[in-house]
Amino acid sequence: MQIRGMFITFEGPDGAGKTTQIGLLSQYLSRRGMAVVTTREPGGTPLGDDIRRILLDVKYKGMDPRAETLLYLAARAQHAATVIRPALAEGRIILSDRFADSTLAYQGAARALAAAEVAAANEFATAGLIPDLTILLDGDPAELQTRRQRRGAGDRIEAEAIAFHRRVRTGFLQLAGKEPDRFRIINALDSVETINSQIVCYIDEFLHRREKQ
Amino acid sequence: MQIRGMFITFEGPDGAGKTTQIGLLSQYLSRRGMAVVTTREPGGTPLGDDIRRILLDVKYKGMDPRAETLLYLAARAQHAATVIRPALAEGRIILSDRFADSTLAYQGAARALAAAEVAAANEFATAGLIPDLTILLDGDPAELQTRRQRRGAGDRIEAEAIAFHRRVRTGFLQLAGKEPDRFRIINALDSVETINSQIVCYIDEFLHRREKQ
Repeated sequence: MQIRGMFITFEGPDGAGKTTQIGLLSQYLSRRGMAVVTTREPGGTPLGDDIRRILLDVKYKGMDPRAETLLYLAARAQHAATVIRPALAEGRIILSDRFADSTLAYQGAARALAAAEVAAANEFATAGLIPDLTILLDGDPAELQTRRQRRGAGDRIEAEAIAFHRRVRTGFLQLAGKEPDRFRIINALDSVETINSQIVCYIDEFLHRREKQ
Repeated sequence: MQIRGMFITFEGPDGAGKTTQIGLLSQYLSRRGMAVVTTREPGGTPLGDDIRRILLDVKYKGMDPRAETLLYLAARAQHAATVIRPALAEGRIILSDRFADSTLAYQGAARALAAAEVAAANEFATAGLIPDLTILLDGDPAELQTRRQRRGAGDRIEAEAIAFHRRVRTGFLQLAGKEPDRFRIINALDSVETINSQIVCYIDEFLHRREKQ
């Protein structure tokens, strides 16, 4: 049986453990014989890496919020067109560290740009590509910030005040509330093992449900 | 009398003489005691210059058209917010080498992205800023290409086939047709002096008209 491609995104703040969980899930799926592609935003392509360097550069602290949004979207457009869509067409499972929801939470909710405008620009960037499943790693911003600080000096986004990170969290939770079928919310403050088991559970359930369709 | 700020853009293909004409007009207006700011896109800000380097890099020849558009728009957002709007607020005359119409002509018309989507993304980038006057330097693409080739090796955009540059020209002329009050079309193949006189004429007429309002 030809396995249909599947596009899974991981969302949530830095320090929530997305990278670790993507690594664990990738191993799990590979062991089951599935073709997995792991990727991330911004980045995921040579162009995206160049854009990522600009976005995280502390010298651009006064970056206009619209410019910031559009840079994320430029990286996403290249990522969607040259990495995600081709991998989906080959029947692979794509695990992406961030995608469109990050822009809606960080630039829409937290930077107070009009949600409808950001959503429209997002749609232009992705040409309408929507994840099959989105794992949201959610947790108290203050506790997650403490975790990040233990990892050392932050970048331009991580250096934002705690109030900013609270708006980001609210933004993510609102998105999840609007699309309960696509989102799975997981407590990012649980242990790595607990989170991994939950994710595996959700993925298995999703694959099982789809096989029956 | 406090002179109101004025935002004048120069559009048209590379090699049409925009830089030369902006220099001449800037001298003319400065001699008349006006505060002039000359700028360009992509670029015009440190962030824009970083983006410009990416956009003109031949290694990105396979850049997704949406990614390309969004990079231009990111540079524009920063430019509009941190250079053009502040200068307008101070009553200056801004002469910009390219602005929103370039994206509509190059990415919309020539790359065949949906015009309405590109226009909406443009509006997001500029937060609705529209030039007071747009000088379109128009000319036969083949003749202008010969001119460009005399200047030496081209960048990623200049290296496009002549059919691309024909679509760009058509795109610009259609934009001018839709907004005849804002656009002034000038033959780019005329002499530098002739073009300069025409531009001065249009600017004087515009300033005169506005004084009467």
